[in-house]
Amino acid sequence: MSQSHNTRIVLASRPQGRVKPENFRIEEQPIPVPGSGELLLKILLLSLDPYMRGRMDDAKSYAAPVAVNDVMEGGTVAEVVKSNHPDYVAGDIVLSHSGWQSYAISNGVGLRKLNSEAAPLSTAVGILGMPGFTAYTGLLTIGQPKPGETVVVAAASGPVGATVGQIARIKGARAVGIAGGPDKCAFIKNELGFDVAIDHRAPDFANQLKDACPNGIDVYFENVGGPVWDAVFPLLNTFARIPVCGLIAQYNSLDLSGNDRLPALMRDILKKSLTVRGFINREFVDQRPAFFEAMNAWLHSGDVKYREDIVDGLTNAPKAFIGLLDGHNFGKLVIKVA
Amino acid sequence: MSQSHNTRIVLASRPQGRVKPENFRIEEQPIPVPGSGELLLKILLLSLDPYMRGRMDDAKSYAAPVAVNDVMEGGTVAEVVKSNHPDYVAGDIVLSHSGWQSYAISNGVGLRKLNSEAAPLSTAVGILGMPGFTAYTGLLTIGQPKPGETVVVAAASGPVGATVGQIARIKGARAVGIAGGPDKCAFIKNELGFDVAIDHRAPDFANQLKDACPNGIDVYFENVGGPVWDAVFPLLNTFARIPVCGLIAQYNSLDLSGNDRLPALMRDILKKSLTVRGFINREFVDQRPAFFEAMNAWLHSGDVKYREDIVDGLTNAPKAFIGLLDGHNFGKLVIKVA
Repeated sequence: MSQSHNTRIVLASRPQGRVKPENFRIEEQPIPVPGSGELLLKILLLSLDPYMRGRMDDAKSYAAPVAVNDVMEGGTVAEVVKSNHPDYVAGDIVLSHSGWQSYAISNGVGLRKLNSEAAPLSTAVGILGMPGFTAYTGLLTIGQPKPGETVVVAAASGPVGATVGQIARIKGARAVGIAGGPDKCAFIKNELGFDVAIDHRAPDFANQLKDACPNGIDVYFENVGGPVWDAVFPLLNTFARIPVCGLIAQYNSLDLSGNDRLPALMRDILKKSLTVRGFINREFVDQRPAFFEAMNAWLHSGDVKYREDIVDGLTNAPKAFIGLLDGHNFGKLVIKVA
Repeated sequence: MSQSHNTRIVLASRPQGRVKPENFRIEEQPIPVPGSGELLLKILLLSLDPYMRGRMDDAKSYAAPVAVNDVMEGGTVAEVVKSNHPDYVAGDIVLSHSGWQSYAISNGVGLRKLNSEAAPLSTAVGILGMPGFTAYTGLLTIGQPKPGETVVVAAASGPVGATVGQIARIKGARAVGIAGGPDKCAFIKNELGFDVAIDHRAPDFANQLKDACPNGIDVYFENVGGPVWDAVFPLLNTFARIPVCGLIAQYNSLDLSGNDRLPALMRDILKKSLTVRGFINREFVDQRPAFFEAMNAWLHSGDVKYREDIVDGLTNAPKAFIGLLDGHNFGKLVIKVA
């Protein structure tokens, strides 16, 4: 891929079930030229996140789908290489939403300048970015963990789950993390300080979860769905809170077979006064300053740690993204574009 | 039934599916004698409410089930006939939770004195009691209707649904009520001022609901479940709120057949940022004073109206309760005990 061209990865076709490499297409185009008031951005880092799976489908959601033949969307860290905008100069580093490509034009709307000396740039799409903010707002505003309560989160070595568990502990709750495989389990228990780590691949996973939650579950931070949900559901306490920020286990297909589990959910929502609430970050935009202040303090004190999984090269993004949906990443998945 | 005895209706057996008359047993016992610090209450009115169906099952819930051979529980309006309690004298009228019987002993805990000149006594178990408070707190605290939004409620001629719709209109929202049969529909539209009334028995019910909600549904106050849920679900807007206070359509059985509707619910909770929250009144006990003040004002101004369905005679309670579960009542169902 020549640096004199813009490499872009577009949605070639909508996936039927599982995402496949042929759903993407890599294109080379001339580097675009910024017009009046515009900037040319060179993408340094691309964030890969599970929500992107939803954008590949043509279904009604809080955000429009990516159109076929359009660049895949995504959060990015970029360097201003040419500026016709009064607020930016060449060399500025910004957080943008430029998608899966190596260059992009911006009119400045939605950009945020980053200070590369304050924190590693990758944290702007990780612990100090969307995943960290999702964990912070979903757990504290919806989950509202109290001291001594039990908080359960899956994908617990991922950027959202890892942060949920650590904030839960800061708030005095017990953190029970679910992850895939012994390495991830060891990491969340030994490095991140979760009280219990459970491998969802274990044959007796549901029993292990039950043993890990002798007082039931007060907060279940739902970011996976699937079999984890079935193990969690009977353990929910009265007044349990369930922030819903992801359902990665069912993104590839909506399995309608098996018993109808809706009546039992509604029954327990009623009998246990459960709160089940989906959310997106823009609901909580006024919490941004508080989030930055708290998270920077926790990072500084060491109360919150994070792990990143950096993959080199934009053209590796499709493969890395497919691996993400299968749980192959270990930490926040970031593509190093340049 | 002799007035020299206490007539009580006990749970004879737990229902298997639908409630049957033989699940109840009528007993005659001596009128109990109050001990030191106790009161003898003569029950005047007994409230019959859908939640009692749940108490007949031996299932975990926010409240313990009624034991077999115990008196069925329920809210009551009673007269103090003998008092060994310093705060009460014979002749006082109180709100109590004395159950399905004609006399009861109380130690005074949980009683509230009623002023029979301020409002009809039956309102203490209706519009100014648990059903009214359920509507008020569930709609305003969880539903949070905004001007111009669409609020849908079923069982809309019942004491909760009727109040939900009227408060929704007071708050500037559109109220779409669902009821069974032309009389109830005419009542909620013409008497209570709902914007639209829809008969859930109509063959094209789901289409009628869709037509009645051209801008979708922002608040669905869930008090029935069943087929109404299926019609409501696809119409829910982003950020819709669903207070869950009852599921009368599924109390008699949990139908697990058919497609699994859980994945679609979770998907929409995520994609539409829905809030689904069960609740019980005791969560909101601090809102009692505000409720009384607001509801008394609305009753006085005529902004809120109510309808009661008074059935004479305690021994008719089982039949009336079974009818309630089938939607045969028309307004708040109250048994006139004495």
